[in-house]
Amino acid sequence: MATEAAAENAAYEELLDNVKRISNVKNAAGILGWDQEVVMPEGGTPARSQQRSALSAIAHELLTDDEMGELLDELESQDLDDEQTAVVREVRREYERATRVPGELVEEISRTTSEALPQWKEAKAEDDFSIFAPTLEKLVEQKREYAEHIDPDKDPYEVLFADYEPYLGIETAEEMLTRLRDELVPLIDSIRESDVELAAPFDGTYDTDTQEQLSRDILDTLGYDWNRGRLDTAPHPFSSGTQFDARVTTRFDESDPLGAMMSTIHEFGHATYTQGLPDEEYGTPLGQSRDLTAHESQSRIWENHVGRSRAFWERFLPALKERFPDVEDASVEDIYKAVNRVYEDNLIRVEADELTYHMHIVVRFEIEKALIRGEIEVEDVPELWNDKYEEYLGIRPDTDSEGCLQDIHWSHGSFGYFPTYSLGSVLAAQLYAKAEEDIPDLEDQIRNGEFDEFHDWLTSNVHQHGCLYTTDELIEVATGEEFTADYFLNYANEKYSELYDLE
Amino acid sequence: MATEAAAENAAYEELLDNVKRISNVKNAAGILGWDQEVVMPEGGTPARSQQRSALSAIAHELLTDDEMGELLDELESQDLDDEQTAVVREVRREYERATRVPGELVEEISRTTSEALPQWKEAKAEDDFSIFAPTLEKLVEQKREYAEHIDPDKDPYEVLFADYEPYLGIETAEEMLTRLRDELVPLIDSIRESDVELAAPFDGTYDTDTQEQLSRDILDTLGYDWNRGRLDTAPHPFSSGTQFDARVTTRFDESDPLGAMMSTIHEFGHATYTQGLPDEEYGTPLGQSRDLTAHESQSRIWENHVGRSRAFWERFLPALKERFPDVEDASVEDIYKAVNRVYEDNLIRVEADELTYHMHIVVRFEIEKALIRGEIEVEDVPELWNDKYEEYLGIRPDTDSEGCLQDIHWSHGSFGYFPTYSLGSVLAAQLYAKAEEDIPDLEDQIRNGEFDEFHDWLTSNVHQHGCLYTTDELIEVATGEEFTADYFLNYANEKYSELYDLE
Repeated sequence: MATEAAAENAAYEELLDNVKRISNVKNAAGILGWDQEVVMPEGGTPARSQQRSALSAIAHELLTDDEMGELLDELESQDLDDEQTAVVREVRREYERATRVPGELVEEISRTTSEALPQWKEAKAEDDFSIFAPTLEKLVEQKREYAEHIDPDKDPYEVLFADYEPYLGIETAEEMLTRLRDELVPLIDSIRESDVELAAPFDGTYDTDTQEQLSRDILDTLGYDWNRGRLDTAPHPFSSGTQFDARVTTRFDESDPLGAMMSTIHEFGHATYTQGLPDEEYGTPLGQSRDLTAHESQSRIWENHVGRSRAFWERFLPALKERFPDVEDASVEDIYKAVNRVYEDNLIRVEADELTYHMHIVVRFEIEKALIRGEIEVEDVPELWNDKYEEYLGIRPDTDSEGCLQDIHWSHGSFGYFPTYSLGSVLAAQLYAKAEEDIPDLEDQIRNGEFDEFHDWLTSNVHQHGCLYTTDELIEVATGEEFTADYFLNYANEKYSELYDLE
Repeated sequence: MATEAAAENAAYEELLDNVKRISNVKNAAGILGWDQEVVMPEGGTPARSQQRSALSAIAHELLTDDEMGELLDELESQDLDDEQTAVVREVRREYERATRVPGELVEEISRTTSEALPQWKEAKAEDDFSIFAPTLEKLVEQKREYAEHIDPDKDPYEVLFADYEPYLGIETAEEMLTRLRDELVPLIDSIRESDVELAAPFDGTYDTDTQEQLSRDILDTLGYDWNRGRLDTAPHPFSSGTQFDARVTTRFDESDPLGAMMSTIHEFGHATYTQGLPDEEYGTPLGQSRDLTAHESQSRIWENHVGRSRAFWERFLPALKERFPDVEDASVEDIYKAVNRVYEDNLIRVEADELTYHMHIVVRFEIEKALIRGEIEVEDVPELWNDKYEEYLGIRPDTDSEGCLQDIHWSHGSFGYFPTYSLGSVLAAQLYAKAEEDIPDLEDQIRNGEFDEFHDWLTSNVHQHGCLYTTDELIEVATGEEFTADYFLNYANEKYSELYDLE
């Protein structure tokens, strides 16, 4: 018995060692990525590309090594405890995805995306979809082929979606997004028809150094652990890192201080998830965050349910006025309205409000799904895009730059990524409802700038679990219920009915 | 014939691919190192250590792979051109050093140095050599063992020295350092006896933001390629990177703006060497800088022969006065004297001037050589250290903190590193003399802030060769002569005789 237990441990320990090495290589690559976005001089690109390729190839080789397969086989035939089972499940999943796709195809896709990025940029700049179309077509084909290698019996879009959200399943995504479309479109229509106009209270120029101070104030207020993080600027804000070093980036626009603040809160949410992962599990799936849905739920819970609340601005408005004395006359209500204003004529996802945001997602989701499933052709995309905007949002883009070319994701070969943005927001509302149930005076705490209990709630119910549970299990563990859009839709209806005086 | 040539190429190309991958891993580790010193939040250390160990283990495994040995064997039996020969020579050297030392010993040394660093810090802070002594003893033994694995027939110090300077040979180091000692000691004595006192012209407080601007001014003036580099602060200034991204760090002391300026110029010299390596050879020995002697020659040629010259300050003094108007009354001669002042009572290497600097090196060189050769015991070090300071510099440290504990290198296990500091300065003088011969109006160019021709001279005579030549060959190619201390000693004697009115 003792011998068998020891042998079991030996295989598991060996698996863990391999997995930790792979994580360390990937985390090193993550630092190289942060560096490239934030501090690298422009001339560094050629060397940096090679460094990142080398690390990515090494991680791939370590993962697909025959020994990994043997260890997984061996461990799967054993009685494992819950944590071991979770580790084996996650590694198996990664292993299968990595070994099933031929190396040449991975390289081909990588080459195509390298070409695609500058072509997308040019197409967007020139407002000429035809510049990007041929490469997009190639990418669609290659990603379809990629999906077929992973699972020839499945809908290829489903397979691609699972790269970003492996456990919720495409049906869940389809149900959720369809429901969001069906219930939000009438709400947005009512808002459009309402006489209420929420004013934008910032009409001056707000210097970016002061905005940066304000972002630091926000992070201080929310309880960001500076000993394990930092704040910088990047053209496309992101957060990255590990539980020991989870960094936030944001960006500043002189005319839009509120935008930077919300972006900072959003990235704080991501970083605080990462910081809340268990230290002692660093480098194993138990010390890694769940996938994009869960991650986005953490950014959105802070951005939407804290950052867009009256309670938060009751707390934070004085700090804002201290940094920008010219908004001295603004009331909490003014800021609350500004930060929740629905931009009826906005065509751009990244500038969208909490409601119309999901329509941007739904449009790309429906189109990319049809593309990958071969139901439409690349050439159909621009018109279909514009039609759907007209249908769901009542506005029609004049240009493809503001239409189907607005987002970078397809040029990265990312198909199936978008839905996780909506799923994350939906999950955020479900989690927040449960947190309110568990912490009855949560709103008062936010009003008093006390975030510890909420933070602890998120850590113990979400962060600390790492990948112990699958996403669906995690949702049930944290909320006691299955994943549902009820909370988000109730929240949206109540909040916006009040804001826009709807009956 | 064609088939044979193709086969030859295949082996060489394969070697190059392996070597490039290793370089990319090492360069990635370099970025992690930069990040850790410059921007990483403190809490990041545990994860960072694991990431760096993983990359270092991977680089070691890639280098010591059997296939590398076979490729080297195969290529060494072929007719190779000069560049191929150089690549094979450099890779062979690294391969032999890496394969001969058992992995366990490497790990043991790594563990000992991990312990040694905090112990050295504590010993220095407490001024108590006995805290550091046991670990130092262990390190000396382990490094001796390490040397024995690499070459049991050679003097172990010679073997260790070759880790930092593989081609000049320990006899050259010994000759050079002995000559420096024998000729500089009397010069320093004369300076001590002279009545001339060079005043320090900075006695105020100089804010570090403005000092940073000044460092940027200096880098602009010298022609630093900002597209491939950046300037930051670090507690121990260093430069690092590749030809595509060679970064500089410096540090600021409110009471010593000259110190920061000289440190910036020094690190600029290192970075400009790196930036001058051929782009197309990135990742191979032909695109990597020669070892520490050559590197230090590039930092010193800019620091000493440009930064400590009258011509440079004729150019740069107005910029200094613009940043710090309170030095308005200073003349070029004032700054020239300040920057060349010999600190007769200084015990600390990193604060030393151009002359006494070498005595700090000589002392540690003589002691570490005797330690590794087993001619003295660790417990003898403090007194021997102090005796030698008294003998060579006429001053005796009161404490071990200011004595043998002042430098970090031994706690890193670096024995044999120190001499390259002096060799680099000596080589700088030799190279500068040749540059003056080739560019007769070099001094005028410096005075006019024209650095392009000098820069080009260094690039075409030193930088662009990468590791094509061994260090001794490189010196002959660049200067037409063997390595010699004549130029340095002439320069030192002339310059300081004038400054201190010696006959």
